[in-house]
Amino acid sequence: MKTLQVIKIGGNVVDDPAALERFLYDFSEIKGAKILIHGGGVMATQMAERLGIKTYMHKGRRITDFETLKTVTMVYAGWINKSIVATLQSKGCNAIGLSGADCNIVPATRRSPTPIDFGYVGDVNPGKIGSEELSALLERGCCPVFCAITHDGKGSLLNTNADTMASVLAIAMTGKYNVRLIFCLEKEGVLRDRNDESSILPRITEQDFTKLLEEGIIEGGMIPKLENAFAAIRNGVSEVVIKHASNLNNQRGTTLVQ
Amino acid sequence: MKTLQVIKIGGNVVDDPAALERFLYDFSEIKGAKILIHGGGVMATQMAERLGIKTYMHKGRRITDFETLKTVTMVYAGWINKSIVATLQSKGCNAIGLSGADCNIVPATRRSPTPIDFGYVGDVNPGKIGSEELSALLERGCCPVFCAITHDGKGSLLNTNADTMASVLAIAMTGKYNVRLIFCLEKEGVLRDRNDESSILPRITEQDFTKLLEEGIIEGGMIPKLENAFAAIRNGVSEVVIKHASNLNNQRGTTLVQ
Repeated sequence: MKTLQVIKIGGNVVDDPAALERFLYDFSEIKGAKILIHGGGVMATQMAERLGIKTYMHKGRRITDFETLKTVTMVYAGWINKSIVATLQSKGCNAIGLSGADCNIVPATRRSPTPIDFGYVGDVNPGKIGSEELSALLERGCCPVFCAITHDGKGSLLNTNADTMASVLAIAMTGKYNVRLIFCLEKEGVLRDRNDESSILPRITEQDFTKLLEEGIIEGGMIPKLENAFAAIRNGVSEVVIKHASNLNNQRGTTLVQ
Repeated sequence: MKTLQVIKIGGNVVDDPAALERFLYDFSEIKGAKILIHGGGVMATQMAERLGIKTYMHKGRRITDFETLKTVTMVYAGWINKSIVATLQSKGCNAIGLSGADCNIVPATRRSPTPIDFGYVGDVNPGKIGSEELSALLERGCCPVFCAITHDGKGSLLNTNADTMASVLAIAMTGKYNVRLIFCLEKEGVLRDRNDESSILPRITEQDFTKLLEEGIIEGGMIPKLENAFAAIRNGVSEVVIKHASNLNNQRGTTLVQ
């Protein structure tokens, strides 16, 4: 089975031109099938501010009214996605920029307005990923670059969580590929001591994770990230790696395995 | 040979939600291979204004500095392109939204800064269109939807003329398809009397065109449009139709033939 690397970069890397350039160079060097998923929240918040649109967040998730949907779609699917594609093309990587609406590859359902009305926010339908379409692109040597905009199939675009989108895409491709899922952050990996970037845990099983949770070593935003990652492993992804965006092609980082 | 319809809609249709919805319904009803190219200039100018970016035009073409490039990419490749894709998907048309940078389908060259420096404006390289990639998408039943953003292959996105992009794409596909190129405007077609929408010329040859030019019947912005159209016909496109966006699937309009 061929290997497919599904790599996610967050808004902080996207927002730093030098870091992004370096990351995309590393990404372009990776041989074989690969998919990139990018965030862009920092830039979206700045653009909303310039447009006089107030940003409301609930537990780290953006409340997305229609004007905000327009803004995030412009920023994620427009400027960020196409800039990344142009940069990758200049480095010999045959990138194709996509949203989840394109070829209906990532259908989603608008989230229920209760208890919190997130507006135009969607949850991905994991069973309905267009893996055939994605395989066809990969087999032609194309490299899909996704922003986390999806649609409801009824004509509405939806703002989606990029981490979830990465996991769901990775899981959907396990039928045809040996899939590695890599989350690139501004952190070196999962740390034993959050204030010491050298205290990386190189390898964690789900059993270790439970223990680390009990010990209070893993906390905050890292918890849903790791839960999400282990769910991917339980669903057929070979390994999930959490690492600093500047370490894409070296061994540093935390590898999560079954 | 199978028929391929390459259809271009301008910014005025894109900017009118009811007209766009109706047009996309008609477009979704078309059977067989089809490609849509859309403009969006009206919305781009409005967005630039909201962002405090001054719009400069020279002979109807936008002077595109970096901030303007960012704006048009957000508007064309982001909001307009993905909204059209989501709408088409809801009508059962398997749309995929693309810029010319995606899979390097439409490479371009930045226009020389003399005599007029248009900034990030590109001229399409007609000999280098990724027709294989486009054919592969069409053969899979996908419907490419292009905005007129391209790239220079060196990492820069470029603002491109959507009419030219439509012609160049149409010409590039003539090797594999019997290509019809349709320009949808807010006019009924080429008129004998510009003030009388019922004076449509149903059919024009290039010889007729020369005569109509001499008689002063065709003037202004219609001249480059028709020159462009006849160039497409000389280069293998079977026919070019100029019609009102609301008449996509009826006979009204002007057909240009060899």
